[in-house]
Amino acid sequence: MKIHNYSAGPCILPPEVLRKASDAVVNFNGTGLSILEMSHRSKEFVAVMDRARALVKEALQVPDHYEVLFLQGGASLGFYISALNYMKAEGGKSAYVNTGSWSSKAIKEAKRVGTVDVLASSEGENFNHIPKGFEIPSGVDYFHFTSNNTIYGTQYRDLPTSPVPMICDMSSDIFSRPINVSDYAMIYAGAQKNLGPAGATVYIIDPEKLGKTGRDIPAMLNLQTHIDKESMFNTPPVFSVFVSMLTLEWMLEQGGVEAMQRVNQQKADLIYSEIDQNPLFEGKTSVEDRSVMNATFDLVNEEHKAVFDDLWQKAGISGIKGHRSFGGYRASMYNALPLDSVAALVDVMRVLKSKV
Amino acid sequence: MKIHNYSAGPCILPPEVLRKASDAVVNFNGTGLSILEMSHRSKEFVAVMDRARALVKEALQVPDHYEVLFLQGGASLGFYISALNYMKAEGGKSAYVNTGSWSSKAIKEAKRVGTVDVLASSEGENFNHIPKGFEIPSGVDYFHFTSNNTIYGTQYRDLPTSPVPMICDMSSDIFSRPINVSDYAMIYAGAQKNLGPAGATVYIIDPEKLGKTGRDIPAMLNLQTHIDKESMFNTPPVFSVFVSMLTLEWMLEQGGVEAMQRVNQQKADLIYSEIDQNPLFEGKTSVEDRSVMNATFDLVNEEHKAVFDDLWQKAGISGIKGHRSFGGYRASMYNALPLDSVAALVDVMRVLKSKV
Repeated sequence: MKIHNYSAGPCILPPEVLRKASDAVVNFNGTGLSILEMSHRSKEFVAVMDRARALVKEALQVPDHYEVLFLQGGASLGFYISALNYMKAEGGKSAYVNTGSWSSKAIKEAKRVGTVDVLASSEGENFNHIPKGFEIPSGVDYFHFTSNNTIYGTQYRDLPTSPVPMICDMSSDIFSRPINVSDYAMIYAGAQKNLGPAGATVYIIDPEKLGKTGRDIPAMLNLQTHIDKESMFNTPPVFSVFVSMLTLEWMLEQGGVEAMQRVNQQKADLIYSEIDQNPLFEGKTSVEDRSVMNATFDLVNEEHKAVFDDLWQKAGISGIKGHRSFGGYRASMYNALPLDSVAALVDVMRVLKSKV
Repeated sequence: MKIHNYSAGPCILPPEVLRKASDAVVNFNGTGLSILEMSHRSKEFVAVMDRARALVKEALQVPDHYEVLFLQGGASLGFYISALNYMKAEGGKSAYVNTGSWSSKAIKEAKRVGTVDVLASSEGENFNHIPKGFEIPSGVDYFHFTSNNTIYGTQYRDLPTSPVPMICDMSSDIFSRPINVSDYAMIYAGAQKNLGPAGATVYIIDPEKLGKTGRDIPAMLNLQTHIDKESMFNTPPVFSVFVSMLTLEWMLEQGGVEAMQRVNQQKADLIYSEIDQNPLFEGKTSVEDRSVMNATFDLVNEEHKAVFDDLWQKAGISGIKGHRSFGGYRASMYNALPLDSVAALVDVMRVLKSKV
């Protein structure tokens, strides 16, 4: 039976990427060696790293002078790295919007480094919407936001612009749509949604905005260290970078982020229209902030839960249980999830309606 | 042609580990899903993480109350993590021995956190030996050393003991021999030598020695965070942990660290005895500190270089060029390198002697 993999991350990857990755684990590019047992300084792997970095630039039309890095630690380490690299040592100030548990963690780490002004928060409403109408002050060192909230299923459909350097944790929607990279001082994202397997974190950096803090930064947390060493200061997460390269190749072959956006919108339209039309279901977030990546919804009547859970499991659907902190259901529809899989879920929702 | 993979790290892994890893990239344990696209919170992956942690304990006879973590960032991030977690916030003091470039980097990061007393250093002799006769003062927060120096080919053949908490970067010789884990407050090691692919870093920690610094530590750099969350505070490097688990299984099937030590010593005896007996070659380090993992040697006469390089390349030997900072040749003989591969290199060294 085909599995419809709705896992929230690590998540579905394209089958051809997985096949190529599997082959490379036993024999990389006909070298007779596994990609796992080659030196990261070998010309073969240096070419992989260079290509992965270049494909990120190509995919998002990143300005020439920006730098792309593949580091480790996920967005969780990125929270602290952001603050260390952009908040001034003396009187450092930053502005954040709190739209979910990842934003909350980012704020917590930034507070260890300097002053944090939380401009707006939807925490009081259990993060069921994206706050609007906040003004970014010009007197802060940077502004930070989280573009998509995996747990709650909200997303900035219109991305902000900022009078100060803007930093975005784009972990769960990078490469899902075109963005204007020049609006950002830095974008960072864990690989394990639209980019590749867990273990790599991509950073897209305007180097002109770095080095303004007057702060001594530990080598591994200093973005300039990694820029100077072309993302090879220490041993990189070789396999995660390689599979990210394969996924970027796949994405560009499909037509790039414009094509991803088109299909992602079709998938989102399909599920949200069912949520809205089917009287047994209701969305969990404000309609205007609905995420194209993660659709969260509830059964109107919990009595239908046993039947519904049985139906989707029998249909080969996996991973739609909502996050423990938000409950209900969550359909994560990252780039590699085919429209067919969304159709399979919508079918099950319709079958439920016909049964009760 | 069989490749004799002497890569210094990432390095050779057992063929059966690579085959199992390759299979799991397309279908993990018959689930129909790739190990790369499963949630790290799935029961399947939680079982992998738990097993990997348990196998580390089994392999090294780690005391029950110790904790094993699989984190990210390599030893390079471990340098800073060590200092942050063990050096007191007020009047923090530490003691280091400098035996190579990794020790030097560890010292550099520790100096950002507090006072570092370098007890001994072989830097003046280009790190060609392990300093002896140093005394570890009882008034420091911890003592740190690097057990094996990959670049220079030196190793503590007798491991030190310490009156203060002892921390060791064991990246390049962990699992190569039995050790007495209870001597250490913490051992850390990048996976990419004897454990698995790049991207994971193992920490073996006595939790009783943690939490004594009075320091506010960022969440991702705080070992207690990861202990509290059973190594799943954030998305772990899933594939690297999985392949590490497979490698640990392989190692235990072979007879564990005692068996590794026996074969590693045979490999070392074979190459070093040729280096000593063959008048065309000479070792680069003090004989008593020779590493069982990385044998470094020079041609006595550089005129033979072209012929020797041609011979070993034609024999399928790969990765024996020395590190740029130390020159000459380096034969890295990690656990998965078969004795046959060392025999192949020794054969080439003998052929060179017969030719010139």
